[in-house]
Amino acid sequence: MDLGIIGYGGVGKAFLKLLIEKEQYLISKGITLKIIFILKSNCGVYNPEGIDLKDLAEFSEEKSDLASYPVGGFDRVNLDHLLDNSDIDILVELTPTNIHTGEPALTHMKIALAKGIHVVTANKGPILLAYHELTELAEEKGVQLCIGCTTGGALPTINGGLIDLAGATITSIEGLLNGTTNFILKEMEEKELSYEEALKIAQRQGIAETDPSLDVDGWDTATKLLILTNVLMKTDEKLEDIKVEGISQITLEDIKKANIEGKKYKLIGKTVKTEEKIEIGVKLEKLDKNHPLYNVDGKNKGVKYTSDSLGDLTIIGGASGVIPAAASILRDIIILHRGYKILT
Amino acid sequence: MDLGIIGYGGVGKAFLKLLIEKEQYLISKGITLKIIFILKSNCGVYNPEGIDLKDLAEFSEEKSDLASYPVGGFDRVNLDHLLDNSDIDILVELTPTNIHTGEPALTHMKIALAKGIHVVTANKGPILLAYHELTELAEEKGVQLCIGCTTGGALPTINGGLIDLAGATITSIEGLLNGTTNFILKEMEEKELSYEEALKIAQRQGIAETDPSLDVDGWDTATKLLILTNVLMKTDEKLEDIKVEGISQITLEDIKKANIEGKKYKLIGKTVKTEEKIEIGVKLEKLDKNHPLYNVDGKNKGVKYTSDSLGDLTIIGGASGVIPAAASILRDIIILHRGYKILT
Repeated sequence: MDLGIIGYGGVGKAFLKLLIEKEQYLISKGITLKIIFILKSNCGVYNPEGIDLKDLAEFSEEKSDLASYPVGGFDRVNLDHLLDNSDIDILVELTPTNIHTGEPALTHMKIALAKGIHVVTANKGPILLAYHELTELAEEKGVQLCIGCTTGGALPTINGGLIDLAGATITSIEGLLNGTTNFILKEMEEKELSYEEALKIAQRQGIAETDPSLDVDGWDTATKLLILTNVLMKTDEKLEDIKVEGISQITLEDIKKANIEGKKYKLIGKTVKTEEKIEIGVKLEKLDKNHPLYNVDGKNKGVKYTSDSLGDLTIIGGASGVIPAAASILRDIIILHRGYKILT
Repeated sequence: MDLGIIGYGGVGKAFLKLLIEKEQYLISKGITLKIIFILKSNCGVYNPEGIDLKDLAEFSEEKSDLASYPVGGFDRVNLDHLLDNSDIDILVELTPTNIHTGEPALTHMKIALAKGIHVVTANKGPILLAYHELTELAEEKGVQLCIGCTTGGALPTINGGLIDLAGATITSIEGLLNGTTNFILKEMEEKELSYEEALKIAQRQGIAETDPSLDVDGWDTATKLLILTNVLMKTDEKLEDIKVEGISQITLEDIKKANIEGKKYKLIGKTVKTEEKIEIGVKLEKLDKNHPLYNVDGKNKGVKYTSDSLGDLTIIGGASGVIPAAASILRDIIILHRGYKILT
């Protein structure tokens, strides 16, 4: 299959490295993936025969201006023009996420789908804002929109719900979806620190951002929960429908008290859907040690689904970083290659 | 899609009920499933227009001799003959398992695959004994062999490994795959019982068989682990390659000691594969409370995979009984309907 990539940051570069590492594996599975173009905001590389990945990866280690890459480097062109002049099967959308506008990814995805090109993306913004519009467009054009990497990265939350529970109706979703807050809670518990002290450690280690509000105020969890809810329960809820609480009010005292009861605080995003109504919220919950997410500590993540005919399913994982993120892009491409129609 | 079912015991009947219950759901997904025939060892029903499921389900509640069913009931016919005279897309194989010969399911599956018919099965025996032979036959004929229900039923162990970790190489499998032993261990721990006392409770509740050896001696776990290993790691190991220990030697004293250390005993099947060698074994392990399978209690089951590029993935579930088993057959049919080629 012929791929175009848009966005060439950490995940994009890791994706190239992964394809190089997995070359033999992919050949053994009968999968041939050629990268026809890589587009950044102001430059790119185009080669209709397929870009030499090893050579470009080496080049990229030293230089970021793809325009100066000798084989097919170019200055900024328009995606529309590039798609009209290349013949790709899949657009891999990896530009930075904007959860308020979805742009520029939303436009990229619409252009590609409208031209009958499959889209594989790690980009939360457009899925959060326009999932149903995008899937309708994809269905109309007979192509697939693969979003397995948008919620939890390597953790197969979306595919787990769509494929592992195929045929069942999901009635509740409980997600421990934010590694940063989970790390902070674990630090407080293990090292007997205050919230502020644990946050500082997370920031020093690069786990929490300088402005940690998106994570610690629960909005990252809410965003991911909303995607899971709308995709798996076929709803059209909005971020403003969710009651969101963060973790910044928790004290070491609270955590110690919970521990004495044999419980742990976790930031849980939870949706419960009945025929009459839907409730979506994010808040700190004291999990009993029998809860399957009780042990999901540190940077790990997990999700628990309740379904009608297939019972409960808990999925725990959490390899984080650019390689697992790239590997989950590759996973969606392989699922697509094997003919799976995720849109139904 | 047109289906033929062979075997009409608990799961077969539950499958019919599930199709009746899920009628609207399936229509909403654009999936039409018609049952063309149901074959038992000495009778069956055949209707090229599709069997009336509600009517047959009602009939089956009172009578087991399908030959007397007014619309298309017949005495024993040969599967070969039936397949030649019907036009089905999928054979659903649900006869009782025989892990020593694989029969009669193995023959049924070979006949169907050779005729270019997809096979969906819950039957461990043939997969244990002849997985590679069957997949080669399926590949040759361009059809799929779907075995998502053979190991753990509703728990998506096989599909989890094949789909959720697509593109990654699985390097270790740890499975808590037997509900009966897990129930006995939990009873011992909670009620402070001896092994013998807990076993008797499990037998009284119908959880353990009168001859419990297959479960308590570890062979059920070994069988499931072997299927996971051969399918997900592309190996060709045999049951005799596995070192198998059961749970019958454990004392309440052992369990109490482990609890004081904050640990729990679980019967774990484990495969570790490196480039040089493979190690497969089943034994009681003391799991630390940080282990993701630590909390998998009672009749629940779980599996933990370690992979190269997608990290660790733990899947926990365990709805047991005929409805979840039937639902996992339906899951494989839907995955097939969506075009997914599981064989690669």
